[in-house]
Amino acid sequence: MTDFEKTRSLFYLPEGVIYLDGNSLGPLPLAARERVTRLMTDEWGQLLIKGWNKAGWMTMPRRIGDRVAKLVGAAEGTVVMGDTLSIKVYQALASALELVPERKVVLSDSGNFPSDLYMAQGLIGSLGKGHELKIVEPEEVDAAIDETVAVVMLTEVDYRTGRLHDMKALTEKAHAAGAITVWDLAHTAGALPVDLSGADADLAIGCTYKYLNGGPGAPAFIYVAPRHADKLRPALSGWLGHEQPFAFDLGYRPGSGIDRMRVGTPPIIGLAALDAALDAWDGVDMADLRRQSIKLCDLFVAEVEKRCPMLNLGSPRDGTKRGSQISFLHDEGYAIMQALIARGVIGDFRAPNAIRFGFTPLYIGEAEVLGAVDILEDIMTNRLWDTAEYRQRALVT
Amino acid sequence: MTDFEKTRSLFYLPEGVIYLDGNSLGPLPLAARERVTRLMTDEWGQLLIKGWNKAGWMTMPRRIGDRVAKLVGAAEGTVVMGDTLSIKVYQALASALELVPERKVVLSDSGNFPSDLYMAQGLIGSLGKGHELKIVEPEEVDAAIDETVAVVMLTEVDYRTGRLHDMKALTEKAHAAGAITVWDLAHTAGALPVDLSGADADLAIGCTYKYLNGGPGAPAFIYVAPRHADKLRPALSGWLGHEQPFAFDLGYRPGSGIDRMRVGTPPIIGLAALDAALDAWDGVDMADLRRQSIKLCDLFVAEVEKRCPMLNLGSPRDGTKRGSQISFLHDEGYAIMQALIARGVIGDFRAPNAIRFGFTPLYIGEAEVLGAVDILEDIMTNRLWDTAEYRQRALVT
Repeated sequence: MTDFEKTRSLFYLPEGVIYLDGNSLGPLPLAARERVTRLMTDEWGQLLIKGWNKAGWMTMPRRIGDRVAKLVGAAEGTVVMGDTLSIKVYQALASALELVPERKVVLSDSGNFPSDLYMAQGLIGSLGKGHELKIVEPEEVDAAIDETVAVVMLTEVDYRTGRLHDMKALTEKAHAAGAITVWDLAHTAGALPVDLSGADADLAIGCTYKYLNGGPGAPAFIYVAPRHADKLRPALSGWLGHEQPFAFDLGYRPGSGIDRMRVGTPPIIGLAALDAALDAWDGVDMADLRRQSIKLCDLFVAEVEKRCPMLNLGSPRDGTKRGSQISFLHDEGYAIMQALIARGVIGDFRAPNAIRFGFTPLYIGEAEVLGAVDILEDIMTNRLWDTAEYRQRALVT
Repeated sequence: MTDFEKTRSLFYLPEGVIYLDGNSLGPLPLAARERVTRLMTDEWGQLLIKGWNKAGWMTMPRRIGDRVAKLVGAAEGTVVMGDTLSIKVYQALASALELVPERKVVLSDSGNFPSDLYMAQGLIGSLGKGHELKIVEPEEVDAAIDETVAVVMLTEVDYRTGRLHDMKALTEKAHAAGAITVWDLAHTAGALPVDLSGADADLAIGCTYKYLNGGPGAPAFIYVAPRHADKLRPALSGWLGHEQPFAFDLGYRPGSGIDRMRVGTPPIIGLAALDAALDAWDGVDMADLRRQSIKLCDLFVAEVEKRCPMLNLGSPRDGTKRGSQISFLHDEGYAIMQALIARGVIGDFRAPNAIRFGFTPLYIGEAEVLGAVDILEDIMTNRLWDTAEYRQRALVT
């Protein structure tokens, strides 16, 4: 059994706060703070440029990629870190489209994170080859996969509702239709068991600042199935994806396998924080995590529905059909979330009307769930959200 | 007069080291270490997700962009931070090409940093519209600018030789021919005065881990001239470049001006380190810096030529024609540099035969220059480099 008391002790959690937003930004792992201090002082400070070799900076994207691979059911040597998730979407989609050059449809759904859709739109605009981004409702994806589709590009867990796609079934359907899949694991990695190998996924991407607790703006990752890795042409063909970066040739020659998905000089401070953050997963059984996550989510849903009838569930009721987050819908969702935050219950708001709560067994237990519902009930019953102050929108929601 | 004793006190410089590689990775600014500790503890740790608003994380790319703008002669609101330099090359070139859709030539030179060339090759491969990357010798760029050229894409200071292009003259020539310019300032920003506005440059990009001391893999920057900023179509159209990122619309609408060059979630820890590192520039007069840089470089050249006649100067002799670095050429350059590093003189090696030294007046003075030459003379005169150990290549050179 996973020891969640132990994992909890690895994080800094401020006094008086119930943090239900680890699906947006994980809290500070104590080890990350230490690791970054060591990086600044002993590595950058002392080793200077020699850190690239002596502190292993240059190999961090692959080494940490292997650690992430274990959490998403990928083999060693199939994941590499770098850039932002948006860039990784572009990189994955650009290469994927070239695997199916005769087809023009990128199929996605309205539950995909908007930036994924925007990056696809930007790429399609640059290519100017008549590609079309077809956006259907999440429930219609399966039926929309046909032999016109080049790439099925989906986020496995819907950022707004938590609805979980069936990666294995949709990948199978896509392959039967001759399409390539690009899976965004932003709300999946570290939230539930993922089996990229078992699902036979083609490409996958994800971020590490949510359930993987890598810190604000932590580096993203990309997975390429071994069968494609040496065939893909990298659109973002940077020097660190070159076969011999330090030969400084004038012509690009892709490195072998996943290495060619590296682009520029990696963000070492961010990678160091992430590396230490991943220590929290040592000894965590993903099946235990999933069981506990569903238990916490179910408890939250049951209590809120009982005590706050004016809120409507915006997530699937069946725990196996969703990620590790719960949304409730209310027209005044923004103000309600501000009132919650003022009382120390931190979730977030997603336009137009969802208040969103993440449940992260590594550091959240039943006591926090019940404590959060107590405060939510007070706010809803007594309309404490109903002030001009709480309706005032901030830049980031 | 700039107080270089004061600026020097702002950096951590290890005992027994003469650091002549600030052109590759600047040393640790003490303020960066403090700032990152504060970020980890007081912001990420205490504020959690609220840091995006309350600690101003979301606006850092623009705020820090404005600080960098001052160092490269750009107006407020024309520079934004993010991604790696390679990604910024791609982003700049993709948008630039669309400004001149009827032309197909990207003109660059063999002194450009290879990753810039690789990214152009990758983009051209994706577009599949018959674009050509034309690579000429640095001295031939001027003559090669004609009315077939869509974009002149150059690194102002040659990473290997330090040769400095005449940005103003080449930009003028490019404009007369109807071409757009993309200037890479990797070896310029913080090394010498730059005047993007005065040179009428179209787009520029650069990194911040060299002369700007932002740390290993620090975020890059992009500049867009105000006349283009609202016209460019962003190829890398991520959510943070959207007009309203938190509206979560399904369709991309570019933000106004330089904002549309933002892509994904910014790397906050790296940005915090950079922000603090830039404090070192408060009170620095770039003309003083340039004068001191030329003085140090000239001294180094004169002493090395006098005392190490077996080394051939690989940089322009005229200080006004080069950046803030000096290369000497020798077939055994790699081993020579290893011998130097073993004796505490840190420069680097660039294939095939250049040993490269950066001169950074913020923290390097005449004493270091003379001390480095003493050791170099000993190594050369007594062939101390001539061992199997020093010929053994590391991953990063």
